[in-house]
Amino acid sequence: MTSFTPLIETLPSTVPFVGPETIVRRTGIPLRARIGANESVFGPSPKVIAAMQAAARESWQYGDPEVYDLRLAIANFHGVGVENVTVGEGIDGLFGLAVRLFVEAGVTVANSHGAYPTFNFHVAGFGGRLVTTPYVDDCEDPGSLLDLARRENAKLIYFANPDNPMGTCWKANVVQTMIDNVPAGSLLMLDEAYNEFAEGTLPPLDAEDQKVLRFRTFSKAYGMAGVRVGYALGHPHVISAFDKIRNHFGVNRMGQAGAIAALADGDYLISIQRKVARAREKICAIAKANNLNPIVSSTNFVAVDCGRDGAYARKILEGLATHGIFVRMPGIAPLNRCIRISVGTDENLQALEQALPVAIKAAV
Amino acid sequence: MTSFTPLIETLPSTVPFVGPETIVRRTGIPLRARIGANESVFGPSPKVIAAMQAAARESWQYGDPEVYDLRLAIANFHGVGVENVTVGEGIDGLFGLAVRLFVEAGVTVANSHGAYPTFNFHVAGFGGRLVTTPYVDDCEDPGSLLDLARRENAKLIYFANPDNPMGTCWKANVVQTMIDNVPAGSLLMLDEAYNEFAEGTLPPLDAEDQKVLRFRTFSKAYGMAGVRVGYALGHPHVISAFDKIRNHFGVNRMGQAGAIAALADGDYLISIQRKVARAREKICAIAKANNLNPIVSSTNFVAVDCGRDGAYARKILEGLATHGIFVRMPGIAPLNRCIRISVGTDENLQALEQALPVAIKAAV
Repeated sequence: MTSFTPLIETLPSTVPFVGPETIVRRTGIPLRARIGANESVFGPSPKVIAAMQAAARESWQYGDPEVYDLRLAIANFHGVGVENVTVGEGIDGLFGLAVRLFVEAGVTVANSHGAYPTFNFHVAGFGGRLVTTPYVDDCEDPGSLLDLARRENAKLIYFANPDNPMGTCWKANVVQTMIDNVPAGSLLMLDEAYNEFAEGTLPPLDAEDQKVLRFRTFSKAYGMAGVRVGYALGHPHVISAFDKIRNHFGVNRMGQAGAIAALADGDYLISIQRKVARAREKICAIAKANNLNPIVSSTNFVAVDCGRDGAYARKILEGLATHGIFVRMPGIAPLNRCIRISVGTDENLQALEQALPVAIKAAV
Repeated sequence: MTSFTPLIETLPSTVPFVGPETIVRRTGIPLRARIGANESVFGPSPKVIAAMQAAARESWQYGDPEVYDLRLAIANFHGVGVENVTVGEGIDGLFGLAVRLFVEAGVTVANSHGAYPTFNFHVAGFGGRLVTTPYVDDCEDPGSLLDLARRENAKLIYFANPDNPMGTCWKANVVQTMIDNVPAGSLLMLDEAYNEFAEGTLPPLDAEDQKVLRFRTFSKAYGMAGVRVGYALGHPHVISAFDKIRNHFGVNRMGQAGAIAALADGDYLISIQRKVARAREKICAIAKANNLNPIVSSTNFVAVDCGRDGAYARKILEGLATHGIFVRMPGIAPLNRCIRISVGTDENLQALEQALPVAIKAAV
């Protein structure tokens, strides 16, 4: 038998990501509402679908390894240069690469306790040492995070704005102050996956700033989670380093075509923002009608405070699952007093409305 | 400025993979024949296209992170268990993960001198030490490769059958002998990307054998290079380790659906095998008509010996490029006396037939 590296031996072999397909396979209960993974039930733009369907016929060709046309479209969209943009297999794929660029055994990374677990998965995967600071009032705490990074000499700092799993956000000026105060030797990994749902949260894009890498995705507002296209914006010195290690032909051809079409369809994005805001209101109303406390959200999901501990919230989540309602919940206390409900169609939310009181009653 | 890891600092920052799109952007010459990347110009099965087009509408959903349905289809196709199969973003993506599982700074990896450069890219990317043995008569040399691995204490051994870039192959019994003689502590990475083009080259699949990982792809015979789906077959101990580090949602939803449809359309595969064999003959005839020597191929491309050195072959390649004919060539002597021509449509090969004598004449 060939031995894995010592680092690989230390990593847990359990799959950390349980998809709704796995749950359906385990329980046999068909889904009535797939509202757990912050996907966009409203789907991609019809123009995106058409572009991907056309590209399907050309899929015998590798995608452009430079992803040039898409990078140019992104660069023009943001008013930066092509050299400020790298594209990868979703933000998750880019996180894996970004961590690999900077982290080896023993390197310290700072995050909020309970923030996006996939980022931490990659930190662990490259032997990084994770240090955390708590959420305050269900928000990531920029000041404490910077203090922690300074104190612990963290090389990377992860910060999501708006936040997942809580859905809270900071205004642009707070984030700008954070960027301005990143300690020497540190890099801020600013995850803006949900920015399209929250006006006034984006500080100006300074593509020459070497203290911050900004991550965007087509998985959320653009409704293309299953397509696997995300990108990072930053200084060319950092952006070009991705080329040293990335899977050069990894961004599929349909995805490259679809993402270009998505950026060009601004009207569709606006329609999605409206639908999401409306569905978010509906989730809040359902929560309140059941004496649960929805946390004000700047994303396409709502963290709903169930008022007790993680065990109680999990019971409600599991009760919903028996009705075919797929939602998720934060993994860490005290955030795990909440269940996290993604926006759904009217039918999805009607199913939620019916099932939630039953699940709450059974959870007592 | 945040410092990269010492390993990242040592890696070259140039992009090692130049796609045809890049060449067209540089030269402004439109392609008449895209026959350089061993893609299948005949395209995916119409059933695959239909499956991907249907899945495009559902692409707001993440792909199943367990890739269960596709893994089950692959397992049934090969008569192994689901636990023997892992799926990734093409073989290239899987190579990155496989190398990461076993290689850290200073670990030795054995390969043939001039074999698939993307594998070596990943070995370098994780700090591995590459040792090589020469091709013999344009074939990888199994005996010398094993001797080298034993002598140098190599943890991984890469071997492609059929081979890329030369297109040669070994019979199944030779490969089986190789598997049986993998040194203790070594793992054979057996790249079978081109197996569908070469009867009698596949040793029996023993999914309990811990000495070998076998890599397959939908990029070649199935005509899905731009879709990004490959898989590895092996012992569950090794296969399950990929879960520790892979990008769990990385295999796109259209690709999962398309690959299932591809496996089910055996008739289409047979039609492609016939078309490839016919086009390969045509390439050989064109080469011979120009006094070049085509090397007998068991793949969807033909390495054509131009009879002199690498500089001369490159001139011919560049001459073809001026006519919009995209071909590639091996990077290492003595293999680089060849140009590598992928199968094309009748129109593609007519364009080649016209351009080749002109390119040869100009290359003198």
